[in-house]
Amino acid sequence: MRIARFNKDGRPCHGIIEGETIHEVEGGLFDGLNKTGETHALSATKLLVPFKPEVFYAAGLNYAEHVKEQAEMHGREPNLPEKPDIGYRANNALIAHDEDVVIPAHAPDTVQYEGEIVAIVGKKAKNLTKENALSCIMGYTIGNDVSERTWQTGDRTMWRAKNTDTFKPMGPWIETDIDLEALTTTVRVNGKQTIQFPTNNFHFDIPTFIEAMTSCLTLHPGDMIWMGTEGRAPNLQHGDVVEVEIDGIGLLRNRFVREGQ
Amino acid sequence: MRIARFNKDGRPCHGIIEGETIHEVEGGLFDGLNKTGETHALSATKLLVPFKPEVFYAAGLNYAEHVKEQAEMHGREPNLPEKPDIGYRANNALIAHDEDVVIPAHAPDTVQYEGEIVAIVGKKAKNLTKENALSCIMGYTIGNDVSERTWQTGDRTMWRAKNTDTFKPMGPWIETDIDLEALTTTVRVNGKQTIQFPTNNFHFDIPTFIEAMTSCLTLHPGDMIWMGTEGRAPNLQHGDVVEVEIDGIGLLRNRFVREGQ
Repeated sequence: MRIARFNKDGRPCHGIIEGETIHEVEGGLFDGLNKTGETHALSATKLLVPFKPEVFYAAGLNYAEHVKEQAEMHGREPNLPEKPDIGYRANNALIAHDEDVVIPAHAPDTVQYEGEIVAIVGKKAKNLTKENALSCIMGYTIGNDVSERTWQTGDRTMWRAKNTDTFKPMGPWIETDIDLEALTTTVRVNGKQTIQFPTNNFHFDIPTFIEAMTSCLTLHPGDMIWMGTEGRAPNLQHGDVVEVEIDGIGLLRNRFVREGQ
Repeated sequence: MRIARFNKDGRPCHGIIEGETIHEVEGGLFDGLNKTGETHALSATKLLVPFKPEVFYAAGLNYAEHVKEQAEMHGREPNLPEKPDIGYRANNALIAHDEDVVIPAHAPDTVQYEGEIVAIVGKKAKNLTKENALSCIMGYTIGNDVSERTWQTGDRTMWRAKNTDTFKPMGPWIETDIDLEALTTTVRVNGKQTIQFPTNNFHFDIPTFIEAMTSCLTLHPGDMIWMGTEGRAPNLQHGDVVEVEIDGIGLLRNRFVREGQ
């Protein structure tokens, strides 16, 4: 099932996508959705960030080639993490499919994409094991963990490198039925492919993260886990359009613009 | 004005505290509160975390003596940060005044308190200056940034060191009228004072953080900024009761228990 979120009379509303039609639903995203009977043309609907997230978890250094690239950037040895230590991002930075990433006028010229899969928690969960970990996940979407690399290497935290307003595109919708093993992530800049990798080729997979995380903390409906990215990326310029596509989920597209240009 | 939050028929409700009485209010915390006429005895009311936060910002290394202690712990030079780079914590870990901090059975024996003031954002804000920064703050409360030091030094991120369930006591209520310069933070373990410091003796003060943060991101009502702590703290044992008091705001008290004991 594909679930989108859009504005209905100024109020966010969920809908189930079937073909080119959004079937409006009522009820909470995590409580069960019932079609109201109203429909909207998908092509004529402005999509929102597909749900309002609670805690924003993010796995860093979670694909082998990306670890090498990051190590080089920071001038250190390319050591793969030994444990699934989860990180955090901030919800202030989220934008929807087809909205613009706005690079601040005072930002350096080293803004890059990171295309990743996002696992969405649908059930309260504590002390899960690898075997039952995915039972708390209600669906998946796509994230672009936009990163300003100069700030990332120079600052003590990743606050502005990763959490500047508009730096976290997410969408276009939630897909509940996927075969993780079968997915491929493809990123394109201005229509030209820049990287492609098996989505599930994680250093630590989703069950491994969930087992570790829930040994100390409770996951709640609306929490989400961004699973990291692979490879290296080019510096983006004013006007560049980045597409992150995961077959079986969808395509997240955002233009990058520099403030004041 | 003092604003508390409590359960009313299973639903969170705000109230204004006057003396020993809570005057129930309706309306959103950030939109204006109107007394309903119903009152409750403060002493008979179980307080909740005083509001439902959005983005959880946290200043680290923000008092001189604490920086020295942390440097020693990590075996590095005690350099004060050169820029106000904000950090993050997670809302999953919040508990209210008088609730127990539960140390997981598998956690090491190096759990410590960090008593701090919390600034609560009441208005959307971008591009503020030091001069007008405090205009977006609607009030203050008290936080205990509980930290497991072995995990903090050994893990790649602070996920379980700082964000294990129950590791973020906050409360007891919001105080909207304070003179920052006049405040003193006092921490007691089992009634015995362990540290006392001028609350406003920050390395980077609240306006400095807000000016920097809002140069890249928008603050929203419900965001909060934990401002860091001073000094070093003892390792806490099963049964210890920690009080963080900031005169003019209130007293946040929590017992520490070890899971399974």
